[in-house]
Formats: sequence, C-alpha cells, structure tokens
Amino acid sequence: MLKFIDGGVCAAQGFRAAGVHAGVKTHADWKKDVALIVSDVDCAAAAVFTKNVVKAAPIRVDLQHLADGKARAVIANSGNANACAPQGEENAERMCAAAAKAIGCPPEDVLVSSTGVIGQRLRVEVIEEHIPELYKALARSAEASDAAGHAIMTTDLAKKEVAVETTVGGKTVRMGGIAKGSGMIHPNMGTMLCFLTTDCAISPAMIKAALLETVKVSFNRISVDGDTSTNDTCCVLANGLAGNAVITEKGPDYAAFVEALKALCVELARQMASDGEGARHLITCTVGGAKSEESAETIAKSVVSSTLTKAAIFGADANWGRVLCAMGYSGEDFDPDKVSVHFASAAGDVQVCADGRGLDFDEDLAKKVLTEHDVEINISMGEGAASCTCWGCDITYDYIKINGDYRT
Amino acid sequence: MLKFIDGGVCAAQGFRAAGVHAGVKTHADWKKDVALIVSDVDCAAAAVFTKNVVKAAPIRVDLQHLADGKARAVIANSGNANACAPQGEENAERMCAAAAKAIGCPPEDVLVSSTGVIGQRLRVEVIEEHIPELYKALARSAEASDAAGHAIMTTDLAKKEVAVETTVGGKTVRMGGIAKGSGMIHPNMGTMLCFLTTDCAISPAMIKAALLETVKVSFNRISVDGDTSTNDTCCVLANGLAGNAVITEKGPDYAAFVEALKALCVELARQMASDGEGARHLITCTVGGAKSEESAETIAKSVVSSTLTKAAIFGADANWGRVLCAMGYSGEDFDPDKVSVHFASAAGDVQVCADGRGLDFDEDLAKKVLTEHDVEINISMGEGAASCTCWGCDITYDYIKINGDYRT
Repeated sequence: MLKFIDGGVCAAQGFRAAGVHAGVKTHADWKKDVALIVSDVDCAAAAVFTKNVVKAAPIRVDLQHLADGKARAVIANSGNANACAPQGEENAERMCAAAAKAIGCPPEDVLVSSTGVIGQRLRVEVIEEHIPELYKALARSAEASDAAGHAIMTTDLAKKEVAVETTVGGKTVRMGGIAKGSGMIHPNMGTMLCFLTTDCAISPAMIKAALLETVKVSFNRISVDGDTSTNDTCCVLANGLAGNAVITEKGPDYAAFVEALKALCVELARQMASDGEGARHLITCTVGGAKSEESAETIAKSVVSSTLTKAAIFGADANWGRVLCAMGYSGEDFDPDKVSVHFASAAGDVQVCADGRGLDFDEDLAKKVLTEHDVEINISMGEGAASCTCWGCDITYDYIKINGDYRT
Repeated sequence: MLKFIDGGVCAAQGFRAAGVHAGVKTHADWKKDVALIVSDVDCAAAAVFTKNVVKAAPIRVDLQHLADGKARAVIANSGNANACAPQGEENAERMCAAAAKAIGCPPEDVLVSSTGVIGQRLRVEVIEEHIPELYKALARSAEASDAAGHAIMTTDLAKKEVAVETTVGGKTVRMGGIAKGSGMIHPNMGTMLCFLTTDCAISPAMIKAALLETVKVSFNRISVDGDTSTNDTCCVLANGLAGNAVITEKGPDYAAFVEALKALCVELARQMASDGEGARHLITCTVGGAKSEESAETIAKSVVSSTLTKAAIFGADANWGRVLCAMGYSGEDFDPDKVSVHFASAAGDVQVCADGRGLDFDEDLAKKVLTEHDVEINISMGEGAASCTCWGCDITYDYIKINGDYRT
C-alpha cells in the first residue's frame, strides 16, 4: 500500500512551491537562496526545533506562529542563518510579512527558516524585493519542488527530496518533503531544515504527536559530525485535501499515517547522512540482540559518531577494535565477551569479531566490502531481542576542506 | 618554590628507566616498543584507568596488583594494545613475571600497560626475550627517561616528558613523568598512558586522592577526537626517598604535593593536546564569568571537542558562530545574549562577539592571530565568577590520513 512516488514537497494535493535567487548568497548569483511553500488552504502544522541553547531568530518567531497549531506557508532562505545577528527577529518577521502579503494570509500563518553563516545581519531587503518573483514562480510540479529543494541548500552536494503515497481511512493520502543538511547533523538535528507537506486530514495535536514520534526514529538517528546547530527545524503542514476523516486520536488511521511519515523521514535522513560534508560512504550501523531499543540506539549512535571509526571506513580499514571501543564508551553497560561484529555491503559480508575476540578474516574481502559506498556495521550484543539502526558517514579530507574555510 | 626541571621520569631519587626495541612493532625495527621503570625501593602506588566498558587485559591485571596500594615497577609496550585479544590476561601477567624476575620482586609489585592495535594476540615472547637487555639498560638519566618515553609512543610525533621540583615538609621533593597519547584523547582519557614517579613520602590513600584530584583538572580537560580507548592508564609511584615526613592526611604538605602534581600533569596534558594526531594548533579555551567551575568546564570542553570549531581553527577562520553553537549544545543552560568571545595568540587579541552578537572585527588581524600554533578562545559568560580552561587541537587532513589506515 505504501509506495514511494515523485513530486517531493508538491506531491500532496494543494501544495505549490518555488525557489529563486534573491541575493542572500552574494558569492554565487546562479544559486537559488529563497524558497516558498504554500498550501491552497489552511493547514494543521507542527514543528520540532534544535535543542541548542543558542536558537536562531526564525525559530523564536516560529514558536509564536505555531501557538495556534496552524499555518499556510513556509518561507526559507539559505546563505545566512539569521542567528546571533542584529535585528534577528525583526528580519524573520519581515520575511513572514512579505510572504503573507503576497499570499493574502495573516503573517502569523507563515513559518520562516534560515540556514547559513551565523552572526551576520540578514539582508532581508533582497528577499523582500524578490517576493513577487517568488510568488509568481509557485507551481505544483516536480520542477517546483526541485527548485525549492535547491534554494535551501548550503554545503549540500545533493538535493534531498522524497514523497510517498498510502491509504488512510480508505482515501489516498500523499506526503512529501524537501530537506537540507550535510554537516552538523547529530542526534539533536544539527543544521538541518526539513519541510514536509501532506494532504492528510489530521488535527494539530495528532500531527504534532506523529512528528515527534517520527523524528525520534529518523533524523535523531543520524550523525555526521556531532555538532548541532542553532537553526535546525523540521516542520509539517497538513491541509486535509485528501478528504479522509480527520485523524483526532491514535488508532488505525493514525498508525497508517505515522507509518508513511516514518518511511518518508527515514529516507530523507539516509539521504542526509549519505551527503555528509565530504562523505564517500553511508554507514548504516545496526545493533541487534540488545536488552532494549534505547540501549541499542545509544550504542549504534556511538559507533556512527566515532571519529576514529569514521576515519577507518574512509580508509576501508576493517579496524573493528574501534567499533568495540566506541561501543564501550557509549555509556551503556554490556558484556564485551558476548559481542560479535560483521562488516557488510553489496560486495559481501565479513565477520570480524566473535565473543569479543578478533577472528582471522579475509582482509581482501573486507577491503572490497568497505570500498562500497553503502557500508553496514552489524553488531550482535547477545543480550536480548531488541535492535536499532542508526546512520552516519565517513570523515574525509574534503570534510576538513569544506569546514576549514566556510565563511569565505 | 615550584620549578620545572630536567630528567623526566628519572628526575625523582631512586628511579631508573629504559626503553628498547623488542619486536612488538614488526614494521619498524628501529622503533623502541618496550619500556621499564623501576624504583630502588617499594613505592606507594595508585592509578586511574579508562571508563570504557571494554577494558584491555593489562588494566584488569593492574587492578589486582594495586589492591595493596604498592608497587616497585612498571613495564609497558607499544605496538599492540592487548585488548580484545586471545590470552590477554595471561600475556599481561607474563610481562609482569618476566620483569619481576629480573628485578627480584614479586610479580604483584609490577604494573603493566599496553597500547597499539586492538584485537590481535600480543607476541609476549619477544618481550620476554628482551627483558635481560631492558633490565641491563636501566639508568637514572635524562637519556633513560627519553628512551622509555619513546618506547611507549604510537602515532605520537613528540615524546611527552616533564619534571618538577618543590618543597614538601622542608624537604626537596621531585616528581616527573612520561606520557603518550595523541588520538582518542577525551574527557575520560582516551589511549593515553602516563607514568609518574616521585620521591615524596606519602601514604597509598593520599597518593590515590592526589592522583584523582589532579587527573580531574589536567588529563580530563583535554580532547583530541572524542573517542576514549580501552587501555588508558595514568599511574604514579612514590618511593619516599626525599625523606619528608610521610603525608598521611590532607594539610599543607599534601597541598604542596598536589600543587606540584597538578603543574606536572597540566603540562603533560597540554603536550598531548598539542600533539593531537595531525594537529597544527593547540587550542586553549578558557571560559570565565561562569556560574560554576563545572558549568565552565562543560562549556569549554564542548568548544574544544567541536569538530566544526576544530576545522575552523585549522583554516584560521574566525568563525565564532561555531563557538557559540558548541556552547549551546554543551548541555549547560546560559543566556547567549551575555556571551562575549575573543580569539587570542602571540599575534594579538581580537574580540569577535559581544552580548551574543557579532562585532565588526579586523579580519586580517584575526587571520594572523589564528595562524599561530598556540591559539586561545576566551569566552566570558557574564553570569558569575567561576572559570575553567580546557585544551584541544585542530582537525587536519593528516588526522584522517593517520587514522584511515592505522592497522597497516
């Protein structure tokens, strides 16, 4: 029933999107830097934000705008984070007001996000100037979703976009999203923006519950470099045009909706980890045989976050000692003598450790396995039946190059 | 009164040391790989070990040998960590027994440490074969300390060695140490070995208290890459030959001893951070105006551990937004609008942020400041009178090169 479809953030009925170059990115005038997503009708809306104590101005504005649990549109820019910057909230409000004026809705029904350099004043006037062009460009098409997806990119090499279709209460429901984020992605969602749209009919309380449940098992299970940002935002707009009976409580309809939302967000999370700054490998770490899902998650996250493990995968070096080491400092208690570890990929599967001790393994095969783009680290704890999967990427020379001179 | 002196681990009376090549490091036959440190008389001894759940065999052996709070000698090898390896404890005990036989003391009075690759059997027989040569090489000299210091190095580029002299109870007391560690150094002492010797007369209970207090403000305040290892050990041997009245309780003598031990260990910690794998910069982060020392420490550690901040320092990029960001996800609560940040070095001092907002600063001067080897990040919280300093290093292409292919 659940299937992946095209259309991204415009896959759901009644959503249009656009992306243009306004001039926030001053060094590259061909790069889109402002995105707009608009629903034809009012939406139930919810969002989760960074847990960083230093929160960017747009987040403080969104918290106010979401107080009533509804929204019509999202405006977002890349090139400047509007964090720790002069006139932060004023400029974030000006973005909302300008978009609202074009759409014909109250400014409080517009959400706003920014991503880019911290500490510099956002040139909001160039965004205001380009609102007519942006509004005119709105369309419901794969191209429009693509344009919006590109307009929120910073160091991302690839646009992140997914859409799925499912059935809720006998009606076809669609949902899709665009996201950005390639550095600073960690358990608490570093410099990531994600905008999700759906035509499902669902109450503000239920969409919020669904989003929290989903983020926990998708974006909060990826790690790129352990840093979390001032601007991370994941929001969802649900306009109800699918015509299903409004979901107002947990039950089969809610379950079907959440299943689809999770599939959507896990795929976006994988795309983000895979496009980690400078990354050459997507690392998928599955911890099984654990005493609880929480324990498995803590251990898997520690492995994908370990700089030494990431460097070993970069070098296609089957250095499983680093995997055990990262498990050991995760904070979870376990018996190392029960642990087994496999490295796997499309090229094969190599067990490197059993009962906490090294095995004689085929180094050539291990090298081949770890040379693939998608690499799995599969761990068995021998302690129970729970499991969890987390995603990360390797660390490369390019990561350092990208981040050694980000501002210039 | 307190002054730095030469002699390293042989600075204190009655301590001899040696380092030779035994063949644990098979790929480099000119590299020393076994060290021995021996006191002429029995010592009060204490040690702190890794908090990693996966503990190497030598640590499990040392915990037993230290049960009586005394020791005569330390034997250590590099090239193999004897962790997650076959016959781990048996081989660690064999190292102690071989050294004890040469010295003429019980094997329980010998401590043992290993560092290197995880998961491979330690070729203990080559160490046993070289014990006569090692014992014969024992000497009390700067050269002997140097040889022992080199014999415990792995990816370290520089040997770490310090000694200090002070006065305790009217007597001249000396203490010195050698250490290794350049990667995996984090709050809980990743892959670090540190052997300290002193001729101070002090009880086992007091030497243990002094060591715990000292490690907390020295080695636990450095971070290289956030990974902690299976083998980290810091031990101290006190043989009493200085002739002071034995320290058996906290008081002026204890305070004088701890002051010197802290000076010794802070300097070793700085040397370790400065020699972080591939590092080009020592980063010293001081957080002042904090509500408590604990709060200041948490924030300073978060800054020196931030991969993005480390990459910015590598690029001499005054990207203070990343500093604020790292402070924000430290887990401490604070008011960002009261924060000020300076970058400083021998080349000057540049304030980049006041009241949580960016300042127009001299980018050329900032570049000069950050191009120096020793770089300071000085933060004022505007919340209290407490402060703390932590140390780290930048992340470079070489870090990844070193760790991408460590085993081969």
